[in-house]
Amino acid sequence: MPHSTHKIFIATDSNSLYRDLFHASALPGLEETQLASEANIILADPPRIAPHLHQFSALAWLQSTYAGVNALLQPNARQDYLLTNVRDIFGPLIAEYVLGYAIAHYRHLPQYAEQQRRGAWLPMPYRSLQGETLLILGTGNIAVQLAHVANAFGLRVLGVNRTGAMAQPHPFAEVFSLSELPQAIGQCQLLVNTLPSTPQTQNVLNRETLKHAQNILLFNVGRGDALNDDDLLAAIAAHSVQHAYLDVFHYEPLETQHPFWSSPSVTLTPHIAAISSPEQVWQQFCDNYQRFCLGAPLKHLIDFARGY
Amino acid sequence: MPHSTHKIFIATDSNSLYRDLFHASALPGLEETQLASEANIILADPPRIAPHLHQFSALAWLQSTYAGVNALLQPNARQDYLLTNVRDIFGPLIAEYVLGYAIAHYRHLPQYAEQQRRGAWLPMPYRSLQGETLLILGTGNIAVQLAHVANAFGLRVLGVNRTGAMAQPHPFAEVFSLSELPQAIGQCQLLVNTLPSTPQTQNVLNRETLKHAQNILLFNVGRGDALNDDDLLAAIAAHSVQHAYLDVFHYEPLETQHPFWSSPSVTLTPHIAAISSPEQVWQQFCDNYQRFCLGAPLKHLIDFARGY
Repeated sequence: MPHSTHKIFIATDSNSLYRDLFHASALPGLEETQLASEANIILADPPRIAPHLHQFSALAWLQSTYAGVNALLQPNARQDYLLTNVRDIFGPLIAEYVLGYAIAHYRHLPQYAEQQRRGAWLPMPYRSLQGETLLILGTGNIAVQLAHVANAFGLRVLGVNRTGAMAQPHPFAEVFSLSELPQAIGQCQLLVNTLPSTPQTQNVLNRETLKHAQNILLFNVGRGDALNDDDLLAAIAAHSVQHAYLDVFHYEPLETQHPFWSSPSVTLTPHIAAISSPEQVWQQFCDNYQRFCLGAPLKHLIDFARGY
Repeated sequence: MPHSTHKIFIATDSNSLYRDLFHASALPGLEETQLASEANIILADPPRIAPHLHQFSALAWLQSTYAGVNALLQPNARQDYLLTNVRDIFGPLIAEYVLGYAIAHYRHLPQYAEQQRRGAWLPMPYRSLQGETLLILGTGNIAVQLAHVANAFGLRVLGVNRTGAMAQPHPFAEVFSLSELPQAIGQCQLLVNTLPSTPQTQNVLNRETLKHAQNILLFNVGRGDALNDDDLLAAIAAHSVQHAYLDVFHYEPLETQHPFWSSPSVTLTPHIAAISSPEQVWQQFCDNYQRFCLGAPLKHLIDFARGY
């Protein structure tokens, strides 16, 4: 039985791992190519493939290995192909990151480590997360999964999206529109940004919005450009923000001279809040490849106009 | 309208706070007394009241401010009164403690803090809690609440109780009896003891049971005497236990010479995993006081025969 042959070009940080997965799964009708002009499918880390995308004259579908596809959405970037990202695997990892750090803060875990080092038995009063209000910027898949876990801890969870509208059932006590952000920030003790980078979300956490915060914990696990770095430092100085947990930055790795490194009110991590394993990405690729062969709609398709 | 008068004796670490709550709530027919012989009701921290209990000749009901009432269950202790403890408020706090430390371990939070101090941007591979197996010793209220939160993180949760039986619905994937503990320990990556202290649960985590563990994280938030300290150190040396998080000990504060203080594989905290606030205890007291006045069954009654 003849069948059409698809050619995949792999361009990731983990090419050898993906080749192992490719060979192990033996997808029908799929061959690997090292020639850009031949490939109709790409599996790639967005920043790695973006500068070369014009060479792929036969491109029909690009599966990103990241959730963030911003590198492929720059002005004048081509939009004549299907772009899919990976989803659904980040929510639980983001929930671990946010709630792990939130608990460490509320329950004084670093201080107890220090007390143990000096042999001190000193119980400290604490507040629980129960009843605290968590505001999540974004109401997509990651936000919903984070909200679900946060609800289990007894947190009250608010969401923010473009319109303030969201179909029920959803795990938020209330959903605000982006224009109501100041009002929403004024109600929370914890704020998590999970927004993708779009013109509307760039710089959304700035001097104007952060001045409504009251001694909050701020988490950025979305995109670095959602947050104005200088405005955050000013908000920390003004006690609007008590502590910031930052996993994403305007430029990564973060510049060695950046004041975040040494601020006692900033905890920074090297973009590890949610890392997809090649196994998880490959599973989503295989699922989409079946759909691609059938001409069925792909999962996790990016809308070039919306940017996510 | 005449009504019977009840007299309460308060013996806690926070007497002035409880007196404020007592005066603020103005419970009908309740007066405070400082005379042991006059009191028919006691609100007390168990270790504080235990040595004096024989003086309370009119005692009908003692409301403990702790979950643990072991100090009142010693051999030959009187059992001619209603003993109630506080419950339902510890589960969420225990969940924060266990999952906070579990995430800190799985997600390398202390290592990232150290890397930030020396200005290093070094992502580390990690595993998520998703799909890991958590074994909880105990299937009571605290265990159920912990299991509920753990399920939200995608953990598979097993329970252990005396009989292995438990009415559905419950949040455990499987419930084992105490005699099946070795088999259950062999399946888990995380183990949490929440058991009360009874003759059956003393020393339950010993050389014999711990040898079935495979590089697990072990949490003791139940009672110190459930765990044999020397056997834990041997299990750590044998890599049966990777790290232990201990909040309760045979003697508290933990002796300054105890090897736990300096073991890099032990994190110890000064009995803070779950502390009830006087406000929460008082709320449960008020609820029970209404029942007491009506002659209705008290909530959270201790069965002297079972010991919990």
